[in-house]
Amino acid sequence: MATRPKDLSLNEEQLAAITSGPIAGSRKSYRQGTRYPALRVPYREIGQTPTRARDGSLEANPAIPVYDSSGPFTDPAFTMDLEAGLPPLRQAWAGPDLELYAEPSSEFGRGRLHDPATEHLRFAARRSIRRARAGGNVSQMHYARRGIITPEMEFVAIRENQCLDRLREQAPALFRAHRGQALGAAIPDTVTPEFVRDEVACGRAIIPANINHPELEPMIIGRNFLVKINANIGNSAVSSSIAEEVEKMVWAIRWGADTVMDLSTGKHIHETREWIIRNSPVPIGTVPIYQALEKVDGKAEALTWELYRDTLIEQAEQGVDYFTIHAGVLLRYIPMTADRLTGIVSRGGSIMAKWCLAHHRENFLYTHFEEICEIMKAYDVSFSLGDGLRPGSLADANDEAQFAELYTLGELTQIAWRHDVQVMIEGPGHVPMQMIQANMEEELKHCFEAPFYTLGPLTTDIAPGYDHITSAIGAAQIAWYGTAMLCYVTPKEHLGLPDKSDVREGAVAYKIAAHAADLAKGHPGAQVRDNALSKARFEFRWEDQFNLGLDPERARSYHDETLPQEGAKVAHFCSMCGPHFCSMKISQDLQDYAQSKGLEALEEARGEGMQEKSEDFRRLGQNIYLR
Amino acid sequence: MATRPKDLSLNEEQLAAITSGPIAGSRKSYRQGTRYPALRVPYREIGQTPTRARDGSLEANPAIPVYDSSGPFTDPAFTMDLEAGLPPLRQAWAGPDLELYAEPSSEFGRGRLHDPATEHLRFAARRSIRRARAGGNVSQMHYARRGIITPEMEFVAIRENQCLDRLREQAPALFRAHRGQALGAAIPDTVTPEFVRDEVACGRAIIPANINHPELEPMIIGRNFLVKINANIGNSAVSSSIAEEVEKMVWAIRWGADTVMDLSTGKHIHETREWIIRNSPVPIGTVPIYQALEKVDGKAEALTWELYRDTLIEQAEQGVDYFTIHAGVLLRYIPMTADRLTGIVSRGGSIMAKWCLAHHRENFLYTHFEEICEIMKAYDVSFSLGDGLRPGSLADANDEAQFAELYTLGELTQIAWRHDVQVMIEGPGHVPMQMIQANMEEELKHCFEAPFYTLGPLTTDIAPGYDHITSAIGAAQIAWYGTAMLCYVTPKEHLGLPDKSDVREGAVAYKIAAHAADLAKGHPGAQVRDNALSKARFEFRWEDQFNLGLDPERARSYHDETLPQEGAKVAHFCSMCGPHFCSMKISQDLQDYAQSKGLEALEEARGEGMQEKSEDFRRLGQNIYLR
Repeated sequence: MATRPKDLSLNEEQLAAITSGPIAGSRKSYRQGTRYPALRVPYREIGQTPTRARDGSLEANPAIPVYDSSGPFTDPAFTMDLEAGLPPLRQAWAGPDLELYAEPSSEFGRGRLHDPATEHLRFAARRSIRRARAGGNVSQMHYARRGIITPEMEFVAIRENQCLDRLREQAPALFRAHRGQALGAAIPDTVTPEFVRDEVACGRAIIPANINHPELEPMIIGRNFLVKINANIGNSAVSSSIAEEVEKMVWAIRWGADTVMDLSTGKHIHETREWIIRNSPVPIGTVPIYQALEKVDGKAEALTWELYRDTLIEQAEQGVDYFTIHAGVLLRYIPMTADRLTGIVSRGGSIMAKWCLAHHRENFLYTHFEEICEIMKAYDVSFSLGDGLRPGSLADANDEAQFAELYTLGELTQIAWRHDVQVMIEGPGHVPMQMIQANMEEELKHCFEAPFYTLGPLTTDIAPGYDHITSAIGAAQIAWYGTAMLCYVTPKEHLGLPDKSDVREGAVAYKIAAHAADLAKGHPGAQVRDNALSKARFEFRWEDQFNLGLDPERARSYHDETLPQEGAKVAHFCSMCGPHFCSMKISQDLQDYAQSKGLEALEEARGEGMQEKSEDFRRLGQNIYLR
Repeated sequence: MATRPKDLSLNEEQLAAITSGPIAGSRKSYRQGTRYPALRVPYREIGQTPTRARDGSLEANPAIPVYDSSGPFTDPAFTMDLEAGLPPLRQAWAGPDLELYAEPSSEFGRGRLHDPATEHLRFAARRSIRRARAGGNVSQMHYARRGIITPEMEFVAIRENQCLDRLREQAPALFRAHRGQALGAAIPDTVTPEFVRDEVACGRAIIPANINHPELEPMIIGRNFLVKINANIGNSAVSSSIAEEVEKMVWAIRWGADTVMDLSTGKHIHETREWIIRNSPVPIGTVPIYQALEKVDGKAEALTWELYRDTLIEQAEQGVDYFTIHAGVLLRYIPMTADRLTGIVSRGGSIMAKWCLAHHRENFLYTHFEEICEIMKAYDVSFSLGDGLRPGSLADANDEAQFAELYTLGELTQIAWRHDVQVMIEGPGHVPMQMIQANMEEELKHCFEAPFYTLGPLTTDIAPGYDHITSAIGAAQIAWYGTAMLCYVTPKEHLGLPDKSDVREGAVAYKIAAHAADLAKGHPGAQVRDNALSKARFEFRWEDQFNLGLDPERARSYHDETLPQEGAKVAHFCSMCGPHFCSMKISQDLQDYAQSKGLEALEEARGEGMQEKSEDFRRLGQNIYLR
């Protein structure tokens, strides 16, 4: 690659800046498939130190397995080579329904492949393009409806169980959990490949997995599975390079993003996307109308179905796993937004509204919807039916325009399902708390339980700079009510393009919201990590507490700000309360007392005046803990 | 003050570091009382720039009044003198039920007043101490129950209305709001002094206002009023100085804290508190057992009722407005915590549990509760009945120990009310989402609607370093259900002592949670600020958008990271989407079109093929906006 010119977007220095290496305290592990033994399903095991008992003896604590979205980048055995892309795991899983070809069938794709002007930006290592044979259908839904369990289905079944089976035998106490209120979800104790198949078949879940994205580690989106999060990245006309975007993707999945949307609207959208997909172990989503608009120099009225169609094929052949398509922005709904406080705030929605008005014709995404389905099923691209009329402020929440579009998305869902094409539904936006549940209920009812994928929602408009928090509040609630995937919001929302620090803040805030919802729904095993961390906290195993958290680095650095000495990592207090006031320490004294005297001692303590007991406790306490 | 020795905790440099000056874009204002014309109730007006119409004409936007907790520090007319303390506003409001005296009646207080060793730390400007005449009662509840409207009651009535009356006439459109779901609250359209009195009389709200805290700007805590937030500050044995703590208080109220708890457990607790109270316009809460424990060198079993009683009087005479008292940690409840994952995590709760077990006697706070009431009513200190057995992990949420204590707090509430002493009830802690509502319901039922004051709750245990977010999710929900005040949690929770940056993060996260709850409850006028900000956002009035937010500085700096030029502050786009993809801009085009052609044009647009209309739009759009 030494021959590449100086202005290459991925130079040596930038390549070196891609984040890799294990997550603190974690060991990357894999579980083999049963039906498909070639499958290696990734997870992460967080190691723990032993508990030190009062008599000094050590009691081992088990490693805690957790779901892992970070891909090979966190595996020390993996040698990163961005220019080659990730290993094409899924290539070998493909069935006989495919045809292979070398030359892109989209005009734009062909043009860019041979354009000398973008030669220096081009991803070099090309593979054959794949497509369903003429008239065929390679969607996961299509296979599921024929009773077929694909490798992808077994993969996600194993993944969803988080390899907790051994831990359950090893440390059953960690599985103590509250009963959830799943509000209509029906979460199985163990996810089987058959359950995955059935959920995909009926449309209640999707596995976004373009056959041209063999680098993918499949995942599933549906309300009977773990709640997922999406991170948006992408350049704009104002900033960012290809290398930065690749690093943002790697960085986002390290912090837990389950899918990544490339929302680039700047230069070299095609090339940026290729680099991202070839190196992405998670599904990549896009909004094809953005690139289409770039192709007509930003003039919405110049968009045509033909141009858009070519863009869909171009991106499908690159391997995009799901497309946001604003096919529900109908001409007759646009006047409904005229009285809104903030009009139309979806980029795609406003582009289509502008086109509709400029031509006084119906949205071409709606009128050509069946043709779009034909493209989707040839590559297994999933629909993410865009909510182009979502509210951009509390004032506009749950209004006529929003719900009119939602009902149309339901109509389109049924059309897509007739083609066995996978669908999820995008949701708002800005919604006050008391109006969130209605969004979920309307979606389930009118979109026939297709997975809901919401942006937040933000529960107030008054905190620019903190919208990861205003929206995490709404996101946790709507996910509890049944939303299957949450699109993150970063602190930069409404203000600027997120940088790496914002991606981390947004991703962690949304992992919190998603996990809070998993707990509230009573997802089996969801509370294990909470229990393990709480136990570590109570036992002053500081390193374990850090490592079991969502952001070990930050937890450690916060602790070390006031107590940086290594000794403080085993201290029975922290700077918050100091040694005398540590409730956990005092509470441990009490439990030690109970253990040494038997629980009866405490039970008997209910009577008063038991002088002997109290002297026992004083003696014991003073000997062991008090200074 | 030049004579003070070098080691003075408040040196010149530190005094200069106290944050003062107006909040960006805001003007400090005051509203006079009617019944008590001497009252000057503070609020803040956020100025706005005009809207620029399509024809270039300007349309003024009104200033938005908002509740203001920041005290005189943000008033440019105020000259700060920390060593003199704030002006004693309430001194003149006092009635004839008081007696004045110079020498503290607590032994400890007298000792410290004359101790040469702490001379250099002592707050110099002393006033007479006040107390109810023998056998008297000066609590707000006592007056309320006699039908008396105190100046404090009129003050909070004016304050709760946020001076929105003029704006309502000026800009009625900003008052467009969704209906709330107040879940049992009964929020009036306008808060009258009579309503305040009645809520205080029945115990559904409290006005924490010690008669020895004349610097206070009164506020109210109750579920039919705006949701309030508390910020904890305080040193520990490990860190912090007096000056730092005073600045943390000033800093916390600047970011919206409605009350501040001084949880100091380190050196010079008495002196630190005096400096804080004399300079605090918000109620100060403490946990007296902390100082009592320091007095016995951290040996819980050495605590006595006499020592504790002296501490209560010492602090009451300084002007502490509410005391957290863990009188519900009964001996017989302690065994209920033996099987917990994380035992007892309240500092006060664990201290009392240790004392109970060491002596095998009932908690002396419980056995002496009526005597405590006598002290409270002599100074009008409010109870914050502590939840010493709150859960410290999800695993322990809503367990037997927690609810047993809650029921006892209800019993104590009724005793306090017999003495006309104001009460609020502290709540958890760590609770998964699906179990939050039960906490509120149990509290209302068993504590007879006394205001609930909760710490979060945290909705997951797995995010140390982000517990302001894990808990803001729970806080927003429980406040919606009826919690009256939220105790903030900072990012340092479980890891270390919060510094100024943490105080800001915690306070803003909790202002978000509180405001989201006010919106969900349908609090009158709550949506005005959201609507104003959204309008500013839609009209690209960037400065107004920043200033209307909870943190104007951060919003501005995030925006400026990518577009620092002054021109970008009026640009019709930001770095997020760039000029072509700005949905707000496109959406404005549509609205302009609708305005110029009349709304019928859009309505007619429902029909297809209206060639003339579409040409109109193209011409219009191209002339005005498209490049």
